[in-house]
Amino acid sequence: MTTVARENGTVLDLKFDANGLITAVAVDADNGEVLMVAFMNREALERTLQTRKATYWSRSRSKFWVKGEESGHVQEVQDILIDCDQDCVLLKVRQKGVACHTGRRSCFYRSVLAMSGPESLKIIAEPLVDTKAVYASKK
Amino acid sequence: MTTVARENGTVLDLKFDANGLITAVAVDADNGEVLMVAFMNREALERTLQTRKATYWSRSRSKFWVKGEESGHVQEVQDILIDCDQDCVLLKVRQKGVACHTGRRSCFYRSVLAMSGPESLKIIAEPLVDTKAVYASKK
Repeated sequence: MTTVARENGTVLDLKFDANGLITAVAVDADNGEVLMVAFMNREALERTLQTRKATYWSRSRSKFWVKGEESGHVQEVQDILIDCDQDCVLLKVRQKGVACHTGRRSCFYRSVLAMSGPESLKIIAEPLVDTKAVYASKK
Repeated sequence: MTTVARENGTVLDLKFDANGLITAVAVDADNGEVLMVAFMNREALERTLQTRKATYWSRSRSKFWVKGEESGHVQEVQDILIDCDQDCVLLKVRQKGVACHTGRRSCFYRSVLAMSGPESLKIIAEPLVDTKAVYASKK
């Protein structure tokens, strides 16, 4: 497919990186807040489309990762958008509980103030749930 | 730095991929709309922090890319957030003009309906500006 067709057309033609992955950004379907960024391979996107439950590819564990399958903090997918060059998808989700494994609603809970130093980041959101307890209760 | 310190601390400790890059998501500072997703190396983030103009690393051109330097569609950076494992930043920007080179406000102008087929994507936003004219006028 040509670049023009990929960018202007109506045919899905994913542009994977060297590892067969695309970037996936999950945002709250109601207020647009960015919740997390992860990765998908083709099958993860297909499973997400079919089940409407956000399913990523875990690079660290080399396996499919149905978001919330352990914690219960699932993401019900309302819509999936794709960007111009088809190497990134945007998931509009209904987030049950919290998106971040630290217990925050969003993984983006720190503001960057400087490139180095003991206070180069400023914490702007605190955990809403005790995720240690959440994961322990599932074991 | 330990994983715990990286995730809970206040010290910037970027986790780069094999190419020395992190993902950067730009959102409209006013309404939260996701505008685009690109990449940064350490120096791109440093330049962005210093100049408050979103500066990415172009993988296709292997050079720094001050967003809007040709088109005039610059991104004034209001805030930079970093995610839990420090491999992704979220830029809250004031977008001048449009973010997408196709002339749309956002790069996410198509909804994914299916994994294949001639109508697997549905176009949900049309170009606001004629980007051919924008780039031509700068030459």
